[in-house]
Amino acid sequence: MEPSNTSVVSLTLGQYDIVYNSLSFTIAAMGAAFVFFLMARATVAYKFQRVTEVAALIVGIACYHYVRMFGSWTAAYTHTAGTNGYTPTGELFNEAYRYADWLLTVPLLLIELIAVLYITGNRRAGMVRNLVIAAVVMIVTGYPGEVATDTPTRLIWGTISTIPFVYILFVLWTEVGEAMKRETPEVASLLFGIRLLLLASWGVYPIAYLMPLFPIGAADALVFKQVGYSIADVVAKPLYGLMIYAIARLKTQQENAPAPDGASVPHDDTVASPGSKAI
Amino acid sequence: MEPSNTSVVSLTLGQYDIVYNSLSFTIAAMGAAFVFFLMARATVAYKFQRVTEVAALIVGIACYHYVRMFGSWTAAYTHTAGTNGYTPTGELFNEAYRYADWLLTVPLLLIELIAVLYITGNRRAGMVRNLVIAAVVMIVTGYPGEVATDTPTRLIWGTISTIPFVYILFVLWTEVGEAMKRETPEVASLLFGIRLLLLASWGVYPIAYLMPLFPIGAADALVFKQVGYSIADVVAKPLYGLMIYAIARLKTQQENAPAPDGASVPHDDTVASPGSKAI
Repeated sequence: MEPSNTSVVSLTLGQYDIVYNSLSFTIAAMGAAFVFFLMARATVAYKFQRVTEVAALIVGIACYHYVRMFGSWTAAYTHTAGTNGYTPTGELFNEAYRYADWLLTVPLLLIELIAVLYITGNRRAGMVRNLVIAAVVMIVTGYPGEVATDTPTRLIWGTISTIPFVYILFVLWTEVGEAMKRETPEVASLLFGIRLLLLASWGVYPIAYLMPLFPIGAADALVFKQVGYSIADVVAKPLYGLMIYAIARLKTQQENAPAPDGASVPHDDTVASPGSKAI
Repeated sequence: MEPSNTSVVSLTLGQYDIVYNSLSFTIAAMGAAFVFFLMARATVAYKFQRVTEVAALIVGIACYHYVRMFGSWTAAYTHTAGTNGYTPTGELFNEAYRYADWLLTVPLLLIELIAVLYITGNRRAGMVRNLVIAAVVMIVTGYPGEVATDTPTRLIWGTISTIPFVYILFVLWTEVGEAMKRETPEVASLLFGIRLLLLASWGVYPIAYLMPLFPIGAADALVFKQVGYSIADVVAKPLYGLMIYAIARLKTQQENAPAPDGASVPHDDTVASPGSKAI
């Protein structure tokens, strides 16, 4: 297994800049989402607070990795004075930050979704375990292909990694569908949005992964891959977290709404009691 | 589309310093505002807390981008020993940080204002959606003109970008006017101030944008543009946020004021109950 050769191509100013600015934009988005989810915690019922905490951890971890990636990117290239181009410095851009990030955040993303679908139950514990194992297999087998310099190696590991990928998406799709049947129409419509978001964000990863195989030149392939992963991460972490939070808010409000006979549930009990279990 | 050539002009000591100090001043203002809005959250009614959170996120994101811009500025120029001048190092000053910042903060600024005008309702959701779409179009079409090296490109993209710009200002102007009619005189007078602030801050951006077309030399144009954008950002983010916060405070006090028959609404219920919806 050879290290990635992505850092050994020269880039135009525009190619360098779009990756540079995508990485910086993602740092800002993740950092802002981190602050938001920490504050959002106080606005949902106690049993959903763990969900907003997990959302905060996910974007906090991603923020850290994007800061590292930004530093690695600027170290890997230098502007050639008097030209419009960037040449490699010899330092390699460290692709492994993304995989280290996913190894931590993808299990948390799965826990986040399952936690808002099922608050309790043995069924949930077993499902989370299977999904987390599949996620780890997906990420660990994806990495050798990501840093491969030859097409067969990328394709073989990519194919192996696709098996747990499809399994996870299938389970989530089915579980969200089941949940849509038992929830109120308002919650169901948010769950419909979550389904679309899952497809949109998870769908980008395999495309970005295969980018080096497209006949578009190594520099463009590198740029599309980095920008693609960054966009997918913004959709899959802060935006996805916002939708999960919207569900938690709506469920909190529904449970606090006056009962049909006019008696209202006391607020404080729902928000702060340590009796119920979230994760 | 060619990259900006703003970093290839030499600057006098004074020109370099005024941008340097404007960027640093703005970091301090944004950072202080971030801490303030986080603390302000506890001082308004629950339904306005989201407004102060959004205000905090806006200045937090801007603080991050000004730190980056400051670094990019110091990397782009070097002091020529024994002279009064700064010459380009070859590193380019990254103008895109402003656009990345606006892409995140302008939608949040719109949400912040609409959220303090209308607390609930479908009308608000639709209005926010239209305004956010217009903001994204405005920023994305403004950028190619910003980094253009020739006048026609700057003018064409600038003109396209002005259409959503005018639309947004018109909608905000009208909506604030409507709100002035239904609010108490105290709130209406703050809203009058918000209107002036919107005109003052939003009005600076097009002037700064067109600065490179003024017959004042490339170095002065660069300086006026950077200082102009920085001033406009301080007015449009921390000062604007403070006025929005003043409205939220006033409305909180009005709602907590003793009713005409002398019975007062308990504070705690209004400040901390999770029943009502802010965003």
